[in-house]
Amino acid sequence: MIRVGIVGATGYTGMELVRILDAHPGARVCYATSRRWSGKRLSEAVGHLAGAPEIVLSVFHPAEAIEAAELFFVCLPHGEAMETVGQLREADAMVVDLSADFRLADPALYEMWYGEHTRKGLLPQAVYGMPELHREKITGARLVANPGCYPTSVLLGVVPLLESGTVHSEGIVADSKSGVTGAGREPKPNLHFPEVAGNFSAYNIAGHHRHISEMEQELRRVAGGEVKLTFTPHLLPVNRGILSTIYARPVSKPDERKVVNLFAERYQDEPFVRVRGSDQPLPGLADVRGTNMCIIAPRVDSRTGTVVVISCIDNLVKGAAGQAVQNMNLITGQDEVTGLSHLPLHP
Amino acid sequence: MIRVGIVGATGYTGMELVRILDAHPGARVCYATSRRWSGKRLSEAVGHLAGAPEIVLSVFHPAEAIEAAELFFVCLPHGEAMETVGQLREADAMVVDLSADFRLADPALYEMWYGEHTRKGLLPQAVYGMPELHREKITGARLVANPGCYPTSVLLGVVPLLESGTVHSEGIVADSKSGVTGAGREPKPNLHFPEVAGNFSAYNIAGHHRHISEMEQELRRVAGGEVKLTFTPHLLPVNRGILSTIYARPVSKPDERKVVNLFAERYQDEPFVRVRGSDQPLPGLADVRGTNMCIIAPRVDSRTGTVVVISCIDNLVKGAAGQAVQNMNLITGQDEVTGLSHLPLHP
Amino acid sequence: MIRVGIVGATGYTGMELVRILDAHPGARVCYATSRRWSGKRLSEAVGHLAGAPEIVLSVFHPAEAIEAAELFFVCLPHGEAMETVGQLREADAMVVDLSADFRLADPALYEMWYGEHTRKGLLPQAVYGMPELHREKITGARLVANPGCYPTSVLLGVVPLLESGTVHSEGIVADSKSGVTGAGREPKPNLHFPEVAGNFSAYNIAGHHRHISEMEQELRRVAGGEVKLTFTPHLLPVNRGILSTIYARPVSKPDERKVVNLFAERYQDEPFVRVRGSDQPLPGLADVRGTNMCIIAPRVDSRTGTVVVISCIDNLVKGAAGQAVQNMNLITGQDEVTGLSHLPLHP
Amino acid sequence: MIRVGIVGATGYTGMELVRILDAHPGARVCYATSRRWSGKRLSEAVGHLAGAPEIVLSVFHPAEAIEAAELFFVCLPHGEAMETVGQLREADAMVVDLSADFRLADPALYEMWYGEHTRKGLLPQAVYGMPELHREKITGARLVANPGCYPTSVLLGVVPLLESGTVHSEGIVADSKSGVTGAGREPKPNLHFPEVAGNFSAYNIAGHHRHISEMEQELRRVAGGEVKLTFTPHLLPVNRGILSTIYARPVSKPDERKVVNLFAERYQDEPFVRVRGSDQPLPGLADVRGTNMCIIAPRVDSRTGTVVVISCIDNLVKGAAGQAVQNMNLITGQDEVTGLSHLPLHP
Repeated sequence: MIRVGIVGATGYTGMELVRILDAHPGARVCYATSRRWSGKRLSEAVGHLAGAPEIVLSVFHPAEAIEAAELFFVCLPHGEAMETVGQLREADAMVVDLSADFRLADPALYEMWYGEHTRKGLLPQAVYGMPELHREKITGARLVANPGCYPTSVLLGVVPLLESGTVHSEGIVADSKSGVTGAGREPKPNLHFPEVAGNFSAYNIAGHHRHISEMEQELRRVAGGEVKLTFTPHLLPVNRGILSTIYARPVSKPDERKVVNLFAERYQDEPFVRVRGSDQPLPGLADVRGTNMCIIAPRVDSRTGTVVVISCIDNLVKGAAGQAVQNMNLITGQDEVTGLSHLPLHP
Repeated sequence: MIRVGIVGATGYTGMELVRILDAHPGARVCYATSRRWSGKRLSEAVGHLAGAPEIVLSVFHPAEAIEAAELFFVCLPHGEAMETVGQLREADAMVVDLSADFRLADPALYEMWYGEHTRKGLLPQAVYGMPELHREKITGARLVANPGCYPTSVLLGVVPLLESGTVHSEGIVADSKSGVTGAGREPKPNLHFPEVAGNFSAYNIAGHHRHISEMEQELRRVAGGEVKLTFTPHLLPVNRGILSTIYARPVSKPDERKVVNLFAERYQDEPFVRVRGSDQPLPGLADVRGTNMCIIAPRVDSRTGTVVVISCIDNLVKGAAGQAVQNMNLITGQDEVTGLSHLPLHP
Repeated sequence: MIRVGIVGATGYTGMELVRILDAHPGARVCYATSRRWSGKRLSEAVGHLAGAPEIVLSVFHPAEAIEAAELFFVCLPHGEAMETVGQLREADAMVVDLSADFRLADPALYEMWYGEHTRKGLLPQAVYGMPELHREKITGARLVANPGCYPTSVLLGVVPLLESGTVHSEGIVADSKSGVTGAGREPKPNLHFPEVAGNFSAYNIAGHHRHISEMEQELRRVAGGEVKLTFTPHLLPVNRGILSTIYARPVSKPDERKVVNLFAERYQDEPFVRVRGSDQPLPGLADVRGTNMCIIAPRVDSRTGTVVVISCIDNLVKGAAGQAVQNMNLITGQDEVTGLSHLPLHP
Repeated sequence: MIRVGIVGATGYTGMELVRILDAHPGARVCYATSRRWSGKRLSEAVGHLAGAPEIVLSVFHPAEAIEAAELFFVCLPHGEAMETVGQLREADAMVVDLSADFRLADPALYEMWYGEHTRKGLLPQAVYGMPELHREKITGARLVANPGCYPTSVLLGVVPLLESGTVHSEGIVADSKSGVTGAGREPKPNLHFPEVAGNFSAYNIAGHHRHISEMEQELRRVAGGEVKLTFTPHLLPVNRGILSTIYARPVSKPDERKVVNLFAERYQDEPFVRVRGSDQPLPGLADVRGTNMCIIAPRVDSRTGTVVVISCIDNLVKGAAGQAVQNMNLITGQDEVTGLSHLPLHP
């Protein structure tokens, strides 16, 4: 039974970790922090978590943390997470960091997209926590940088194409649509209910979203060369889920059957990726709601010679807390799927 | 390991049973029927159930059913369910019937509200499947009539008041608001997305909803005399959940502390009822989404001398499939909470 | 052409006034204030109002206001509005105040429910701006206190019953459900999109909502005696609309036909109240979306002897900006329906 | 005062025409048909249209139609519309056809994408009804083929780029997201409320949506050569609106200022196209809800050298009924904006 700590337990990813770990037979939340709700029980701070283990929330304190738990999920904003991760690593605790702070191996890249990095020394030990790309390294890691939600949905849909040399590495477009929880629990004017309901819009388009850096880093690795991605995020009037529609130009005349097979083979042993072939329906957000699954439908537009891939996840699960638990399972030597095998809540 | 059959597996309650039972350690779905999808695998018929056990759907056939399973959930419309239940009971299978066909002990009442009853002989053996009212009888039953969704939310909010003689049995009002899944999976003009989104309305008001018969039957039992209920159902633009706001006139000057205590004591040993006191927030549908929990907040309006009770469930879980599994657990001698203890999916 | 000023133009009621007045042939917005957006053009502050007259927002200044306009809509929070209204009235401008500050004739009542009142001297000249109750007085008024959204929907559904002595004045219950814009444009944790979508809950129940004071004041007038109302507001996951379900006990055996006729006659000359008889469908929020209409369906539950009334408005129109323009039309001697006769936007 | 007939008045586009024309000073609906509701008054068939002129719905009959009206909006499914249009044109009535039947000038193309065409003789007189492309021809036309909803949003976003030779004509991608009303009023399993709410998915991707034919026809005209479009439609959980995100490769190094200017100049005299520059917020569906406006934000991703255009309409207004009324205004010599100048309903 792994003793787990959650730093930042009252945001959406922290709450989702509580939900998932509550049903996990091999882990127990023993420590949880919240600046705002410090001193309150978790169920007082977050009403719907009545029924979860009764933990009193505290302000993060390294010594107390290390005393209480052995593995930590750090759910803090980028920039803030790095110090906490540093303190936990100094005490040799296992860390899955859900922020962006350790995702980019190159600190210059981090500083270009995010700002100053004060714990560069830890970067070499951080592993990008996407098991489908780095399972072996994750297994031996003590510091896992859990991927962003958009990158999870985009990378799983693009990697097989680039890895196999099926498509050109330039000109790839990822048009992604995300539920509102991806923007966090903090109320903001543009996330106020009446501004979102019945509405739909794009934001940070034309090269301005920070997740681009992380996607391109991983795509470079598999392509073995420079990759520039055109990425457009949109805000959906739903709570959960990301659906990415990906466009790429094949190097030779494409064949849908072959492209589907490429994905099917690449992911045949993956417990949390499912490929839908030409005779199967396109996936929607409801197909993955509450699950750690990524469903991918690769298609070919033979009129225009374009590969079109639909990739679909729950941003709070495979895009955050679920993938973090998957990483915990790997680090701690448990079966990778433990606690993550429920069916979607649909409708 | 109980071998379970689901008759009518591709409606919303059938699908929800598959979801819940998939995570149940003591039961396995071995048989499932669907007229429309007969011959197809469950995951072909219901895409999001890929990942559930691969069962081939068939048309209901009593001998095949009995061969394959020992306990059946019957998820058919009222009027249709009774024959199937009859055939299963003839073979002495255990049955949890989710229709209205065996909820009313008095066949005359059934025929007044629903239509002809062709299996009256089975009525004496049917137990109304609300464990909070009839746990002992359910434990020994072979035929459980699973309560309606509205009655579950209303009864749990009213019973302590009438049982204890706290309120007058006349003049009780239940104003209930339900998500759309309560109306089933069949597309209808009034349930077409654009007709429901951003909308809200009442229906079957002023004594016309059939669930009244079932609520009054159970309230008569606890009140020891006639009870007439004013019941108003409304359609909410949400997928899941029922919130009932209940109004009753106390027999003597009420005191909120006493009323809260009354509920707290009545339900103190109930695993699936949670009472929120005066200092706790009022419950909302999100607090119970995907769970078998009923959350109740009893309050007193001291200005008008009215008891106001908020009662909140997930209509597909405590209001249907979850309560059915709770009944299965009782019938088959398993721990009542088995497979039903997950936290809500919120947001 | 009336020259109109809007004090507080960038909240939801201010924005709605701009929308309605933009299509009004007899009024023109000449002055608009916003503390936050002072110095910006209206369309910069509120993107979707591009296309409206280009006004530069300013901080409220009495002399400038009076110079620019002759009639003012004051859309400020209660407590703040009274001073502004006072300054405008000192310059003898016509005022429609959308706050609660001048709705209660009795300052003691105001101070009990809201707080200190610093402009009591103006109360005698304020008219409660519900034309269906006070049309004549409004016509001659210079200060109209525009009704609250909940009171508008409840009063129109209750008044005919009490006026005619059809129901007892005690024991009336109003169970109201409101869209989120009723809570204003300020982002709050409980109004953050993911907290509301798919959710539904009650708030301020059991005698705690301030609008009770205003409803009871008007009901006392028509009943000619004390009236205490049990009022339960709920938050719907929709942008616009209030639907109130009202319960009352008739003094003698009720007859649905008579009750429908009572409403039909009471409102036969009202341009913005429509009564739906027994053979007509119950109204929903979509039937009034974007309009100044109140649709009422009176029914009788003959099983329990209860009168049940459904009353339905758009909270931003008949519940706020639309009724305010209706009042402006009356004050300024224009046809009451001018600028208010469009069909609902449905779906 | 133009006397107008609506053939197929009880679908979503027919209903929207009634709404718009009700506020149009130069047209009056004198004739309306509905097979299903024949013999009923319009307000009986479509409850929320109480308040519209009281017309009795009939089954379409050419002689009666011609007697009653002079200009017809035909809101029938493709394949059905052509015969009705033929009969109306034989009597020399003016027709705005909202189906696809007369949008494709080449009957072979029609038969490839849709099926048999039985009124090919009328094709030469039909004008594609997008005023921004064909204003002059529309002005003199008697038969206008009103554009599809997706084509309206995509063409307005692409035309300036191709017309000016700014982008390559191959490799253009249009990723479009539509509200549910675009799929019509007929209830279907995939449009049942619980299947859409909280969900999002793509459909008919990779070259399978019929609107491609219409988009490519118009793009060929402006490009002066072959254009193949990769088009991906998605279903949004909202009632109204289409937002298209368009990707194109510029022929030379692009400059956002120049691209914005290109659009601003192209549409400077267009009453229903608004261009948002680099310093203005990206548009969302709420900005156009209920209006005939198309808002376009052209941007350049300088990292990847891609032009990205956001184009946003209300599918029922600029994408259907509003554009049809705009065409009516042109045909009948009225000011083009008559009856179409209201602000959006937001929230």
